[in-house]
Amino acid sequence: MKRAVIFLAASALAMPAHAQERAAGEAVEQSSAQNAPLFAGELEFSKAFLADIMAEGVVVPTPKDPGGGYTHEQHKRNFKAIYLGGQLYRLTGEQKYADYVRDVLLAYAELYPTLGEHPARKNSQSSGRIFWQVLNDAMWMVDSIQGYEAIRGSLSEADRENIDNNLFRKAAEFLSTGSAVTFSKIHNHATWATAGVGMTGYLLGDKELVDIALLGLDKSGETGFLRQSELLFSPDGYYTEGPYYQRFALKPFVVFAGAIEKNDPSRKIFEHRDGILLKALTTTIQLTYDGYFFPFNDAIRDKSLNTDELFHGVAVAYQKTRDPGLLSIAEWQGRTVLTDAGMMVANDLAAGKAKPFPFKSMLLSDGPSGNQGAVAVIREGDSTTGKALVAKNSSQGMGHGHFDKLSWQYYDNGHEIVTDYGAARFLNIEAKDGGRYLPENESWAKQTIAHNTLVVDETTHFGGDAKVADTIAPEQLYFSDTSGAQVSTGRIVGAYDGVDFTRTVALLDIAGLNHSLVVDLTRVNSDGPHKYDMPLHYMGQIMRVGFDLASNTQDRPVLGTGSGYQHIWIDAAGRPSTAKSAFVTWLLGDRFYTARWVPQANATTILAESGANDASFNLRREPMLIQRVDGVSDTTFASVLEAHGRYDGAAERTTASDSRIADIAHHRAGDSDIMIIETIGGERTAFAISYDKDPAAKHRAKIAGEDIRWTGFAAKVELPRGGSRK
Amino acid sequence: MKRAVIFLAASALAMPAHAQERAAGEAVEQSSAQNAPLFAGELEFSKAFLADIMAEGVVVPTPKDPGGGYTHEQHKRNFKAIYLGGQLYRLTGEQKYADYVRDVLLAYAELYPTLGEHPARKNSQSSGRIFWQVLNDAMWMVDSIQGYEAIRGSLSEADRENIDNNLFRKAAEFLSTGSAVTFSKIHNHATWATAGVGMTGYLLGDKELVDIALLGLDKSGETGFLRQSELLFSPDGYYTEGPYYQRFALKPFVVFAGAIEKNDPSRKIFEHRDGILLKALTTTIQLTYDGYFFPFNDAIRDKSLNTDELFHGVAVAYQKTRDPGLLSIAEWQGRTVLTDAGMMVANDLAAGKAKPFPFKSMLLSDGPSGNQGAVAVIREGDSTTGKALVAKNSSQGMGHGHFDKLSWQYYDNGHEIVTDYGAARFLNIEAKDGGRYLPENESWAKQTIAHNTLVVDETTHFGGDAKVADTIAPEQLYFSDTSGAQVSTGRIVGAYDGVDFTRTVALLDIAGLNHSLVVDLTRVNSDGPHKYDMPLHYMGQIMRVGFDLASNTQDRPVLGTGSGYQHIWIDAAGRPSTAKSAFVTWLLGDRFYTARWVPQANATTILAESGANDASFNLRREPMLIQRVDGVSDTTFASVLEAHGRYDGAAERTTASDSRIADIAHHRAGDSDIMIIETIGGERTAFAISYDKDPAAKHRAKIAGEDIRWTGFAAKVELPRGGSRK
Repeated sequence: MKRAVIFLAASALAMPAHAQERAAGEAVEQSSAQNAPLFAGELEFSKAFLADIMAEGVVVPTPKDPGGGYTHEQHKRNFKAIYLGGQLYRLTGEQKYADYVRDVLLAYAELYPTLGEHPARKNSQSSGRIFWQVLNDAMWMVDSIQGYEAIRGSLSEADRENIDNNLFRKAAEFLSTGSAVTFSKIHNHATWATAGVGMTGYLLGDKELVDIALLGLDKSGETGFLRQSELLFSPDGYYTEGPYYQRFALKPFVVFAGAIEKNDPSRKIFEHRDGILLKALTTTIQLTYDGYFFPFNDAIRDKSLNTDELFHGVAVAYQKTRDPGLLSIAEWQGRTVLTDAGMMVANDLAAGKAKPFPFKSMLLSDGPSGNQGAVAVIREGDSTTGKALVAKNSSQGMGHGHFDKLSWQYYDNGHEIVTDYGAARFLNIEAKDGGRYLPENESWAKQTIAHNTLVVDETTHFGGDAKVADTIAPEQLYFSDTSGAQVSTGRIVGAYDGVDFTRTVALLDIAGLNHSLVVDLTRVNSDGPHKYDMPLHYMGQIMRVGFDLASNTQDRPVLGTGSGYQHIWIDAAGRPSTAKSAFVTWLLGDRFYTARWVPQANATTILAESGANDASFNLRREPMLIQRVDGVSDTTFASVLEAHGRYDGAAERTTASDSRIADIAHHRAGDSDIMIIETIGGERTAFAISYDKDPAAKHRAKIAGEDIRWTGFAAKVELPRGGSRK
Repeated sequence: MKRAVIFLAASALAMPAHAQERAAGEAVEQSSAQNAPLFAGELEFSKAFLADIMAEGVVVPTPKDPGGGYTHEQHKRNFKAIYLGGQLYRLTGEQKYADYVRDVLLAYAELYPTLGEHPARKNSQSSGRIFWQVLNDAMWMVDSIQGYEAIRGSLSEADRENIDNNLFRKAAEFLSTGSAVTFSKIHNHATWATAGVGMTGYLLGDKELVDIALLGLDKSGETGFLRQSELLFSPDGYYTEGPYYQRFALKPFVVFAGAIEKNDPSRKIFEHRDGILLKALTTTIQLTYDGYFFPFNDAIRDKSLNTDELFHGVAVAYQKTRDPGLLSIAEWQGRTVLTDAGMMVANDLAAGKAKPFPFKSMLLSDGPSGNQGAVAVIREGDSTTGKALVAKNSSQGMGHGHFDKLSWQYYDNGHEIVTDYGAARFLNIEAKDGGRYLPENESWAKQTIAHNTLVVDETTHFGGDAKVADTIAPEQLYFSDTSGAQVSTGRIVGAYDGVDFTRTVALLDIAGLNHSLVVDLTRVNSDGPHKYDMPLHYMGQIMRVGFDLASNTQDRPVLGTGSGYQHIWIDAAGRPSTAKSAFVTWLLGDRFYTARWVPQANATTILAESGANDASFNLRREPMLIQRVDGVSDTTFASVLEAHGRYDGAAERTTASDSRIADIAHHRAGDSDIMIIETIGGERTAFAISYDKDPAAKHRAKIAGEDIRWTGFAAKVELPRGGSRK
């Protein structure tokens, strides 16, 4: 009896396959039931899933429906059954699993050769055979080939040849030469396709399939899996499309890498490019708050670490690294996979080896060479209730990128305070275009005004052209994770003709405040006058507005006609004249937040909400503040965001519901920007930015007779109290 | 040494007070540390609180600020310190606690005689001395007198007389004869006042104070605590103001009752009126979902069982009843009180005696005699993730009542699906009028259109006059908690001149549906044509609207000019012609909901949102559907609310995102109302209402040639499948 074990990363290879299988099965059932509840849980879950689907018999319907529809969901259930059934056969040796997986695959072998383009395909996407998108076909293949691997040795030669030739070879052909455009992309869709094709090549002993998977259809290495691993991740393991797709792309990377390691150990795939695949996994985890991914670019906001891709990723990475921080991630997930890597995770977790995952402030460079901007993550406290400030100074990230250069986002106290809309999409819901990206993804979610960054003349960065955007990345000028004075500065030239801007965000421990303060300073340079809008999208209920408002109480107009402005209702507008009054305080959860800014001359502040021009109710309705400055060339937006106080509904106790800051000011001194923050207690702190990359260079500014001295690019300087000022 | 032990419900009274105290203290510290973590936690928490406030010294500021302000919060902290400090002295015997409580009380004894009306008092409320409202003074007294009781025996005679005479006697005088209007009300404010005054009377041995507390200022028994316990609770233990105030009112009831029991055991206070006080406690708990109170009438929505009043209530009730369900409530609270009742709760919880609290469907009559309407609670599944349908057929409930006769609310899957706005109020937040009820509480939250019930001619029930509303209650016609066919029917005559309406809500287990279905049938009778609006306030994002809409995409008009209509933005409107298309599907959490109705001739459906005319951002913005029928006399609103499907973002799997119902119909047959529900699978079910209270009476209706037979007031009848229909 011949058995392929290519995807098993470790086993007692000397034993005959069948005995080995049984022994492993018994060992697993025993050890996991007693010692590793996580694995026992997976076994139980998988057995229940197989029992259910086996009771329904083999159901392989002719493809018909789009995402979310019946045939789509049934084929998804089938590849899950093929994968899990294979693993259960391997682990338990129970023939019923092998028989069922075989029967399902035989049904596919009969159906597959009859399939043409999917009837629900969309012109904008590459059609699959089984599914409406070729991507789903590739996902089907990645799981199915693993399930097939586990049972192939148990098949009759006739069945094996039938499934080999009529299903997997044909599917591999379709996904490679038959879908050459997708297969040859440097894109996550291509990673799924190359993984499926390559793993099929290993299993069928078809070197041609392996070669084109690794090196591209022309085997030049210009495309294919290896090139993808070089071009799609930065040296810091950041995936250019952003965290949501990083998670998604990770599974074919790690699963196929496992197969390469097994079949082609001399490639040392896990050491490839300084261990980029494992680095990508830990970076994916770092890009979360409370387990949820930072939702920038096209992202479904309810995606967390608790997802199939990362059950695989964590298990494979743990098996390679034994990093105990990964065990605490597995614990948070409460799930693992039915592989020996998953078993190791479960056993070591049960043995108490887990340690907290080391979430930390970090700068993640973007681009294959790390020079296409960066994502800066500034943290304070834990990743569940602490603070996290994310500066998105990264490159466009292709078609799923949003036009939001130098945008930012902020988390605190378990909540997203300054928000990113994510994608306008409801995954797999038929009523919402079958789960596809909705028209509002283009008209709102991708537009600059939907983000926390500068909009010039009511138009979107790069004119909303992703091809142009992909050619121009921001520059990360500075990053410091110094405790109490963490800073990130980025600059973008080319988002607009004739306008460039530099933004510094910082998290500063300020004397007199109980919470670290976010400082946000954006310096805009231009060759002529423009209209500048700086939106702040936040979550919460407004408690106090520091300035007079003209409110649209009787009917609610729309802010503009395009670039996302058509989706904004105007609630009110005002013209605060000083930073003492230029603030809005809101409540979210049990904490208060005050955004405060230095009003420029002739500036207006607009209080608004998303959701206009949305007859299909495709948008969430969320509040925003917009600082608007019209008819000036150079300008500076200088703001702070302050967390304060506590609202305790249970104890009916509220403290510090009003801002603890008395005033802020912005000064230009030479080429430096200086902000001065004064608390209601009179404590005064300056935050000075020299923009000088020399860390040893000393700087000095005189403001209203007061000497401010600091060293390096940016620094926090404590000043004499308000009373002693002059 | 003389010690009063009046508030200690049980103790080894034979021991000398001091020794007893010490022994108790040691026993507590030992047993709780080892066996009762709940009590140990309270001790630790209280010690930490006292350590903090003692480190600040005695701070008794001259009253100045309104709710949420500094002096308000400091005086709240002080009475907490007096209470807890007293309990800690009693439990540990440590002199520092007695000394601190004494010093704080001496400071109050010096301050109190100098106080007049509070500078931040509002004309609409009775002024306190220490606080802006007399209510807060009474709360101060209820806690402070208990703290004083614990240390009074340890004081010098001079200190004792000073505190007795200059603080507590004066405060008791102010709260009784000095605030005669409040003290003589049948209202929770009066309960707090009588409890404070009565407990002071017991402690100081002042029979006059006890008598007026129990029987009113004139000692006639027409007012006072005993009368309150008779008039404020219905025979089912329902408090006429609703769950939020029921919770609030409960503490003085149970705490003062404990003191009465101790000092006046012959009164058998806990047996008074068939054990009404303990019944009121369990009823309070029944009025929750996932631990949160049903928020009808003036209610802060974030009030849960996790609140000081109910730590006391649960402990006192458990000590009297040993009901193990109460232990699971204490476990959910994670808190108890520092009394021997609290210790018993903690010990028995640690001993594993807890059982689930028996949440169940129940009809709670309203009114002292139980004949002023009712609140019907219909449950299915547990109280955390199951279904709960609340029909509010109760009386107005005085000034905090909302004008929403026969309104309803619905919970499922851990969420509030059909919502009640609660109060427009932000507790203790200075920026929001210091935490008082906001103007929008009158202009929106109390208005009928803000609730899920019938509005006639865009005016509010009873013309919005609470005095009139208090004289007219609905009639509860029927209630059944039969599993699978739970029904409540209420009727109101007098909410509008010349219009009365009868509403049936039911939770029915329907063949072909995975979830029980809510049926809602409102029959309106009138002497002439009117405009009828039936709002449905819900939570979730719209997935699909079954009919064509004219959307206000460019600017968003306001629906009306008064009675709450001025706060409604119109998003869109349409005129569905059949029940097949008259539906709206939304998503909340991981479940879909479809509201479907039988469109009347010439009816319009309005999709809208609250938040218009709200320049101060005092309102939450929440969606609603309004069925509008204009120019008819009699009409019937026949609707269903269906839970279906599942959205699993983590697994990217969505099932049954569209309604499982094909059609619904409403028929009038004689005096009966019949709804027929047909699923997409063809299963057909009738729900028939005869309005005949005779449970044995048989009824029959012929609809389109089909015979429908049932017995009693209302029943579910399975019909032949759609295919056999004719």
